[in-house]
Amino acid sequence: MFAKRVNEIQPFRVMEVLARAAELEAAGHRVVHFEVGEPDFATAAPIVEAGRRALAEGHTKYTPATGIMPLREAIAGYYEAAGVAVATQRIIVTSGASGGLTLLAALLLDPGDELLITDPGYPCNEVFARLAGALPRPVVVGPNDQFQPQESDLLAAWGPHTRGALLASPANPTGAMLSRQRLHAICRALQQRGGFLILDEIYQGIYLQQHTAEYPTGLAVADDIYVLNSFSKYFGMTGWRLGWVVVPEAAADAVTRLAQNLFISPSTPAQYAALQAFSAEAQAIHQQRVDAFNQRAGLLVQGLQQLGFRIPVPPQGAFYVYVDISHTGLDSGEFCRRLLDEFYVAVTPGADFGSHDAGRYVRFAFTTDEASMRLGLARLQQALSAWGAA
Amino acid sequence: MFAKRVNEIQPFRVMEVLARAAELEAAGHRVVHFEVGEPDFATAAPIVEAGRRALAEGHTKYTPATGIMPLREAIAGYYEAAGVAVATQRIIVTSGASGGLTLLAALLLDPGDELLITDPGYPCNEVFARLAGALPRPVVVGPNDQFQPQESDLLAAWGPHTRGALLASPANPTGAMLSRQRLHAICRALQQRGGFLILDEIYQGIYLQQHTAEYPTGLAVADDIYVLNSFSKYFGMTGWRLGWVVVPEAAADAVTRLAQNLFISPSTPAQYAALQAFSAEAQAIHQQRVDAFNQRAGLLVQGLQQLGFRIPVPPQGAFYVYVDISHTGLDSGEFCRRLLDEFYVAVTPGADFGSHDAGRYVRFAFTTDEASMRLGLARLQQALSAWGAA
Repeated sequence: MFAKRVNEIQPFRVMEVLARAAELEAAGHRVVHFEVGEPDFATAAPIVEAGRRALAEGHTKYTPATGIMPLREAIAGYYEAAGVAVATQRIIVTSGASGGLTLLAALLLDPGDELLITDPGYPCNEVFARLAGALPRPVVVGPNDQFQPQESDLLAAWGPHTRGALLASPANPTGAMLSRQRLHAICRALQQRGGFLILDEIYQGIYLQQHTAEYPTGLAVADDIYVLNSFSKYFGMTGWRLGWVVVPEAAADAVTRLAQNLFISPSTPAQYAALQAFSAEAQAIHQQRVDAFNQRAGLLVQGLQQLGFRIPVPPQGAFYVYVDISHTGLDSGEFCRRLLDEFYVAVTPGADFGSHDAGRYVRFAFTTDEASMRLGLARLQQALSAWGAA
Repeated sequence: MFAKRVNEIQPFRVMEVLARAAELEAAGHRVVHFEVGEPDFATAAPIVEAGRRALAEGHTKYTPATGIMPLREAIAGYYEAAGVAVATQRIIVTSGASGGLTLLAALLLDPGDELLITDPGYPCNEVFARLAGALPRPVVVGPNDQFQPQESDLLAAWGPHTRGALLASPANPTGAMLSRQRLHAICRALQQRGGFLILDEIYQGIYLQQHTAEYPTGLAVADDIYVLNSFSKYFGMTGWRLGWVVVPEAAADAVTRLAQNLFISPSTPAQYAALQAFSAEAQAIHQQRVDAFNQRAGLLVQGLQQLGFRIPVPPQGAFYVYVDISHTGLDSGEFCRRLLDEFYVAVTPGADFGSHDAGRYVRFAFTTDEASMRLGLARLQQALSAWGAA
């Protein structure tokens, strides 16, 4: 009745978690939320004010499909400040990173093509491949490799229909980053195969626990990759739905034509608001938030480790910890269900991010304040005692 | 190097027109714009104010993927006021009608499938089919059939890989509407083939010259069709990028899952602003604008006819007139180029909307004020004299 891809899309387990959490809250329970992949901070005031001003000034009509030039220039300036020259025509403003993934899938994938993705990884990635009629091919990334692939992993998974790879740094759900050396080797290997690399940098700028990026953007390592970015995470603009992609020079015309057809244009008020996202005032707020994520990461990682949870790779970026819960004797799906039902703590089971060893892991997001996190840790301790797993 | 679909996407001729018009304006010429497919009116003040209020109140985070419930309820109320009951779970708020087309293509089209579209028709339609790896199959609609297909046209084009049809009422570029009787026959015919109908109603409410819709929405004729709608046209919210689809009950879960994966959520400020789009105050403004479009349609149709242009089907809705320019002896591409270069009047050539008889037609959009339109008509008269075509 429907297209085949519909049957291939897994439901998000986290949706059940969210629905059950809402039920419990409606019944009067206080739920601690470690499942939410969205920062608790609202958009910074200078950006909100710029959005309000843009509306007052009548910025309510279509813009060029690739975004208003001042915003493309501001993004180019953002790269330039990091020492990387990117021509504005290579920067396409999109409706969130989601819009960027649609564009790149349309540009790069024919029906029957294969796209390498990681397991675990961002669950929607495979759906964008399927949207274009292509197939995702998961490459297992494990703790021994810092949850990031080696170039040999990609080459081993490469088949006659493989066209390229989609990787992320920092990655969801692990917070793992690709080292410069690893990224360089991967780019070289893909180039030899004539394959493309899409690098998801939507958590760019959110670096944790003394980790800093070894490179400001993958574009500093290889100029001919596709970079995906977003105003949602570091810039705190989730609900505005605004992101961008950087494409090689040779792809700029084709991407522009696709954007004209598939989107008409990105949100106009969001674009004018985002101009303010690069201001010193907004950046100061964003940096404070990164400091807060750092505090939280320290608290959560330490707290979980004290409870006996193994965190094989502490997060280097983003706002997630991928936690091995196998010492509880529970499968991660069961762990999540019971933790929520019995102790009102919501986390996301590994199955939402892939299938390899998914029963062993859960993702904790530190998108809630420290007091809530301490409460969550205390409840976890009770859970472990009650289950005889402490 | 890129996916095959990239080579199959035609560039919009109107982009050259827009670029040339901008050059002429930069050189100091006043250009009359009949090429722009966007109303000249900014978003109505009550909606803009609601958007500003939403931002001040901190509505900057993700919403449910299918939209906030009050907006889905408001859309259901909009149908209910027209006498059509639509359950809120069948209404999915999208990032413009563009987002709706992506969703429906993902839901309904496998690689290799065929989608019937009209020639002439909205040029991006075929790109959404290609996005999903499917193929558009144009069905020629001519003036003898009011630029809308008969069910027999669809059945004649039906092949082993055809899955359904995408039609529009009112249609772009012709402003033609599907009669109730014709729509009913089409629905019955498609049902017999097990095919779907997507009905694009993005110009709903913009009815012209004594034409009123014979039915408030296609859902009043057949409850099991897919309806595409938008806040861009009647509701004047182009740049906000907000629309919706109505799907059959049986598709609601699958569409919801696709929306979660492909979009996360539609723009939050836009959704809160759109709540105000159904207010009496905003509707009064929208109705005034429809009155203005009616005035303009009368002026333009009459003016063009007086100049000897044939308008085989005067527009019944939207803000376009599809005009036969063959008496000028020019091909429509040449007509557009010369009219712009020599007389500073911009219109869109038929080639942007299909290929059948495209050299015979141009689209005039009445998205500019009456004074400009009168100036444009005067210049047209000069052009015809100069070219010896008057």
